[in-house]
Parts: sequence; structure tokens; C-alpha cells
Amino acid sequence: MNFFETEKPIGVFDSGIGGLTVVKRLLSTLPNENIVYFGDTARVPYGSKSNETVIEYSLQDAQFLINKNVKLIVVACNTASSVAIPALREKFKVPIIEMIGVGSQAAVKASGNGKIGIIGTRATINNQAYSRAITKINDAIKVYESACPLFVPFAEEGWIDHPATKLVAKEYLSSLKEAGIDTLVLGCTHYPILANTIQEVVGDNVRLIDSGVAAADQVKKEIERMAIGARSSVPGNLDFYVSDLPQKFSEIAELFLGRKISNVHRIDPEVLQTILH
Amino acid sequence: MNFFETEKPIGVFDSGIGGLTVVKRLLSTLPNENIVYFGDTARVPYGSKSNETVIEYSLQDAQFLINKNVKLIVVACNTASSVAIPALREKFKVPIIEMIGVGSQAAVKASGNGKIGIIGTRATINNQAYSRAITKINDAIKVYESACPLFVPFAEEGWIDHPATKLVAKEYLSSLKEAGIDTLVLGCTHYPILANTIQEVVGDNVRLIDSGVAAADQVKKEIERMAIGARSSVPGNLDFYVSDLPQKFSEIAELFLGRKISNVHRIDPEVLQTILH
Repeated sequence: MNFFETEKPIGVFDSGIGGLTVVKRLLSTLPNENIVYFGDTARVPYGSKSNETVIEYSLQDAQFLINKNVKLIVVACNTASSVAIPALREKFKVPIIEMIGVGSQAAVKASGNGKIGIIGTRATINNQAYSRAITKINDAIKVYESACPLFVPFAEEGWIDHPATKLVAKEYLSSLKEAGIDTLVLGCTHYPILANTIQEVVGDNVRLIDSGVAAADQVKKEIERMAIGARSSVPGNLDFYVSDLPQKFSEIAELFLGRKISNVHRIDPEVLQTILH
Repeated sequence: MNFFETEKPIGVFDSGIGGLTVVKRLLSTLPNENIVYFGDTARVPYGSKSNETVIEYSLQDAQFLINKNVKLIVVACNTASSVAIPALREKFKVPIIEMIGVGSQAAVKASGNGKIGIIGTRATINNQAYSRAITKINDAIKVYESACPLFVPFAEEGWIDHPATKLVAKEYLSSLKEAGIDTLVLGCTHYPILANTIQEVVGDNVRLIDSGVAAADQVKKEIERMAIGARSSVPGNLDFYVSDLPQKFSEIAELFLGRKISNVHRIDPEVLQTILH
């Protein structure tokens, strides 16, 4: 065990602001860890891009964090988690925590009737990453999926409980409700922002699974297993890097995290594009 | 006049698929011209990015078209038109047709009561590009603006006349309606796709201005003025280049243009990022 290893930051990357819901969970689970966050706000969204492009961008994002000397990487983007993990684990040696596996485990544990719903971006749903992960844990479980591409723009616009949001949610979720699911995985880091509206539409007897909570628990387990937890007893530093619009990011981050944010830096997308060479 | 000049293609670029509404107008106005279209589908949307980033991407997009030997460039993206035109005109010698000026001219001509509404992405509205252009033509005209960031995802998802689309449109357009506008500029190339819903919400006494129609007319005037119109009497070739998801683009393009599309090629975003060096 290397003393310095313990004080290295945890790296988190996402296609934009959604991964802040994961940072929020990390802050409450592991308050003394230093965190470096990268949000690819110049190239968001990933959910409507090809697998090839998402893998390329994810490798660049991870390399950026590695250059910041992180001890572990959280892929806080479900789209990247669903297509880029093999490429990331092949290239980088640090532990990589992703959203699909941990969210699936939590959902299987929570479900009583073996009927689980999954919602996510079109890319995540098309890749059937969650349904494959859940079937691998227990192939008797029935999985019902629905792509909800309009949820991200509604969340980013802050239309949390507008009547239009509810209409869109009804359109996306009615088939899952009719199928009789008792558990619903919020398979996109933006969706916890719309949790109240989603809960209202699916009804109180459906348990919502926030993969960000599960991911934070997994990070805690992993750093305990490897004995690389911060030894500091004071709150860790938070550093944010984005590829565009740092000011807009600061404002949203303060809303998400409920605290003042000062360390938001802009990285030119051109730097990312050549970071692997 | 150079004979070969006349047979060069017209170049059109947009952040994604929206510029196809302009191509549709060009096909009916100038059916014998060859057209090369570039849609930056790997980096869409531009409307939520910084001016700095939009200018950088626009220069790369235009350089790509110049490398395809175009005789004129149509900036079919309102966001790029609102921030990148000075940089584009400084760097490139071919005529550059943009959306803001032509849309503003058409709106001033159409308005009877001198009250004009403008809708667009947040970037276009924040830059006040349309209001400045209209005031420059006639400073007695009153301009009312509204950013409609959710319209692009609704159009891209094909939710053309869903009740949720109408609720969103009511939220965005009610203040313009109350202000008594008689003309409304669709200041984003995606918006003509939602024209029926927009018309229904603002009422039949409001005239909608499609900047794409005005831009196609301007292209015709410019190539006549410079005597660089195609001499061919057969329909021109259409070539499409996109930075991601050519298959999805083909499907949408066929819907938009009402014809079979075969020439869609993918360009790696990395090529764009280094095209200016």
C-alpha cells in the first residue's frame, strides 16, 4: 500500500451535468475523498451518438482523469457504461466503476415479483446492457425497457414537474406500468432529477433504483477492498473540468449539490481530441 | 466568368439534420445545382454551446466544404449564423449566405403592425442577432423574443403534434401572442417541422417566416448576380457528409426531402478538429 495512493482523487466523468447526481452520493458516502469531475459539455449528449463515437470520447475523458492522477474512475454516464467499459478496462489499470452492473444488482435485490423496468437513453436501451446484466444475475426475471430521449432535455431545462413533463412521462412509462413492474431502474444519471414526476406516473408501489446510489456504495467497497481510502479527516476537495460553458455548469452544479462551487475550469475540446496520441 | 465555377456545388452546413429544411427549399428553387451538405451530428446541438465553441466548429465545417470545392456556402444553422459569420467571411472568399439577415428582411416585409416575434435556441436569442438585424432595417419595429430549447429535441424525436408538444409550445409562445405580434420568425432550422403546432398555438392571424425559404431565394439571387449558376439542365447531385450516425441521418433525410438518399458518408470528428491546421 502506497501512502500517496490514498490521497489521490477519485475521478468521475460524464457526458455533461448528469454525473453530478453521482457526485452528490459520493459526497455523502465518502465525504473526505478528493474528487475530480470531468463533464463533456461541448459534446453532450452521448445517448444519441454511435457506439464508435461514445467509445472514442470515453477513452479521451478517462485519459484526461488519468492525467489528473486519479486512483479510481467512476463512469457516471450510463451510455458510456453500456458500450465503453471493455475498451476502458483494456486501456487503463485503475479500478473502473460503471453504472449498469451496480444498478442491475440493486434492482434484482429490490424486486419482489421479478418484473423490472429499465428506462434510459436510446443508446442505453438499444444496447440492452441492463437487460443482459439482469438476466445474467437471474434469468427468471422479466425485464421491460423503454427509451426516454426527451427526459434529458426536460431535466437540463429544469422542467421538473411541468404538466408537459408529466404527459411525456405517461407516454414513456405506461407500457411498463401495465406490465406490472415493481422496480424501475433510472438508467440515466439525469433521471433522478425527474424522480418525483416518474414516481407519480408509475405509482407508489414501484420502487425506483438510482444507479448513482449503487455506484457510490460500490466505490466505497472498492476503495476499502484495495485499502486506498483517504486518510484525511477533513472534507475533500472538489475540482470540476468541463469542455464548454463553465459558468452555466457552476450554476447547475450549485443547485444539484446544494453548495457553493468555485473550481470549474474549461478544457478546449481540441485538447481532448488529441489526448490519446 | 469561369466555366468550371458554374458546375461547382453549393455547400450547406448545419449542426445536424435541421439544415435539410433549407436543402429542401434549394432543391425546389435551384433544382439543377449540385449540393454538398455537411451535418455535424457528432457535435450537435450548437444552440447550447458557447460562442467560442460555435465559431471554432463553424470554421471547421466551412473548411470541410471548401475542401469539397464549393462555390458558395449556406450557413443553415441559425446559431452559427448568429455568432460565426464575421469569422467565416474573414477566413473564406466564397459568398456566405446566412439565416439571420434574410429571415429578418422577410419578416419586416411581412409585418403589417410592426410587432415581430422571434423564436430560436437559447444561443440565438441570447445573442439578440435577429432583434439587432430587424432594428437595423427599421428601428420603429418592436421585437419580442422567446428561447424554445425543447423544440429541437421534440422535432428530432418526431413528436410533431403530440399533446405535450402543444403544452410546451403554449408555454413558450403565450407571451408573444399576448404582445400582439402579426409575424413570427422560426429562427431555428428545426422549427418548420413543428410549424402546424406553432401555427395552432399562435393563431391563424400570425404569419410564420421560414428563414430557409428566404435563404434559398437569397442563394438564387447571389448566384445570378455572380453568374455562377449551374448550366446543366438535369437535376443536380446531392452529397451528404455527417460526423456521426449516417444511417439515422439517411432515414430522417428521406422523410424530410421525400426522396431516396444514397450518398451519406461519415467523417471522423477528429478529422474536423484538425482540418484548420
